Amino acid sequence: AAFGPVFAQAQPTIRWRLASSFPKSLDTIYGAAEVLAERVRALTGGRFQIRVYQAGEIVPGLQVMDAVQQGTVEAGHTASYYFVGKAQVLAFDTSVPFGLTARQQNAWMYHGGGIELFRPIFADFNIIQFPGGNTGAQMGGWFRKEIKSVADLKGLRMRIPGPGGQVMSRLGVVPQVLAGGDIYPALERGTIDATDWVGPYDDEKLGFYKVAKYYYYPGWHEPGPQLSFYVNLQEWRKLPKEYQQAFEVAAAEANLSMLAKYDQVNPPALQRLIRAGVRLRKWPTDVMKAAQKAAFDWYEEEAAKDATYRKVYTAWKKFREEQYRWFGVAELGYEQFAFPAS
Amino acid sequence: AAFGPVFAQAQPTIRWRLASSFPKSLDTIYGAAEVLAERVRALTGGRFQIRVYQAGEIVPGLQVMDAVQQGTVEAGHTASYYFVGKAQVLAFDTSVPFGLTARQQNAWMYHGGGIELFRPIFADFNIIQFPGGNTGAQMGGWFRKEIKSVADLKGLRMRIPGPGGQVMSRLGVVPQVLAGGDIYPALERGTIDATDWVGPYDDEKLGFYKVAKYYYYPGWHEPGPQLSFYVNLQEWRKLPKEYQQAFEVAAAEANLSMLAKYDQVNPPALQRLIRAGVRLRKWPTDVMKAAQKAAFDWYEEEAAKDATYRKVYTAWKKFREEQYRWFGVAELGYEQFAFPAS
Repeated sequence: AAFGPVFAQAQPTIRWRLASSFPKSLDTIYGAAEVLAERVRALTGGRFQIRVYQAGEIVPGLQVMDAVQQGTVEAGHTASYYFVGKAQVLAFDTSVPFGLTARQQNAWMYHGGGIELFRPIFADFNIIQFPGGNTGAQMGGWFRKEIKSVADLKGLRMRIPGPGGQVMSRLGVVPQVLAGGDIYPALERGTIDATDWVGPYDDEKLGFYKVAKYYYYPGWHEPGPQLSFYVNLQEWRKLPKEYQQAFEVAAAEANLSMLAKYDQVNPPALQRLIRAGVRLRKWPTDVMKAAQKAAFDWYEEEAAKDATYRKVYTAWKKFREEQYRWFGVAELGYEQFAFPAS
Repeated sequence: AAFGPVFAQAQPTIRWRLASSFPKSLDTIYGAAEVLAERVRALTGGRFQIRVYQAGEIVPGLQVMDAVQQGTVEAGHTASYYFVGKAQVLAFDTSVPFGLTARQQNAWMYHGGGIELFRPIFADFNIIQFPGGNTGAQMGGWFRKEIKSVADLKGLRMRIPGPGGQVMSRLGVVPQVLAGGDIYPALERGTIDATDWVGPYDDEKLGFYKVAKYYYYPGWHEPGPQLSFYVNLQEWRKLPKEYQQAFEVAAAEANLSMLAKYDQVNPPALQRLIRAGVRLRKWPTDVMKAAQKAAFDWYEEEAAKDATYRKVYTAWKKFREEQYRWFGVAELGYEQFAFPAS
């Protein structure tokens, strides 16, 4: 092997701060940013250094988009649907009720035009975005009382933020927004009747099963939620080409790794919860149907109001329909036979 | 940003040959090796150059493992189950009948100990391996006549290689091994009665629908087949640390990207096939049950004979059972409601 010209190889040392929207205690999600940082460091011989800060260390979790946009930090790791107040269309970069599964989201993003559709939308916020993790289909949430039909949802106070909360409100639920640490006491005191969170692994840590026995599935409100890495556009453009490459490929790996990690830790957590007396319940079909109708009615309303939303929604809906038809064949055909019915 | 010391950055120019087991016409699978090569090149400023050769250019597709082991080429891209003649346990590095789905295979490999379990097994062949793509659940194959029960399989001549063929032979099928280009004429002349291949996108290109109208699903014999990158161990150890990092992360990206690409191209291909008159059929439950029993009977027999197989199979079986219980809840619960039944 011949040694290349040395002058071509001089690369700067660059130090970035990456603000996560998540606490370290959500180790699977938070950890994806560390997977990225570690790989970028190793790929560049230690010269491109990204330090990850948990929510609240530099900015609160819900201010990560502003912080990246303004250059307070060079990068962030977040869920775009936190920022639907800025633009409702951002929800599709994460997940919407009855949306894509994790695999379908990846297909859309990497090969179905998803990343390209969102690039100009994020550029308007001075940001370039990369898929950066997925939880897989979440659980439907924890309920103090059994839900046997849509009627049982009326007036229920449920902690469920974002698009899921929007749809639930159309079914009569009164959605609440509470930070992670405030949920358990509210559920215990009965200030709220129910809460969503993530899935068995994360939910177990917050102990909801001690105060709300009914654990519903599936999380139709988040069938494949994607996390995203954000980078300030000026900082991105300043990077040497190889560092841009390192960031992009490390983001893809973090995306893959986080889902695989959730898939690894959720199964034993579910078994522990069941042994602890959790009552696993499937959503009644009338709830699923009413929620699906409410979701698509809402998307159509938003699409009628906003051209950018309409453009993304139209592409997404066509993609989703094709995906669903195919996944209903080989994948579902296999899984229906092979996986035990709950 | 300060410039680091130049002496630390001198990296050699390295040129590798990577032998693929696949022809360029299988562009989704073959393409994964090009995704890896292109990313490695870009990550290293053009200094680590991997040139991909299709099956037959340097060695035939089924000799890729030998070629990497002996150092004829530095790297390969293949499916480990091609080499069960060397060690039956290698099938678990790809897929076995009623095995893991693509997501579960990733969870096992990256976070469930799968990669680590296989490292010493491959080291015995002078190889280090990396997951390098997945097709997702395949289709069950093309049949000239309808299959209504296990009895209809007796004496059927079906092109189905590897572990799927092993299980099929226990159901009375006479498995045939034919290269891709030889299948269509054999099916047309009636020399064979049926064939498996991959899924809608690849199957459509070979035109099977013109001579065998029944298209069965799911491909229980390959519910989530993984491709693998192989690297000769001496060549691996000679690489600078950053180049090892570049190869490893590019392999992970290629793994993710290939599945996303299949998920992107299969849905429209399936619709085209249906419009061309293909008769989509679900495997009868008695076939699925008989195949599942035959598969696990066979695994138990192999495990009784071979300690390495037993070690991997025992770990895999436990992992699979936990996975299936969890995936039967949130994912399957969602998909059963949302995806249209075929």
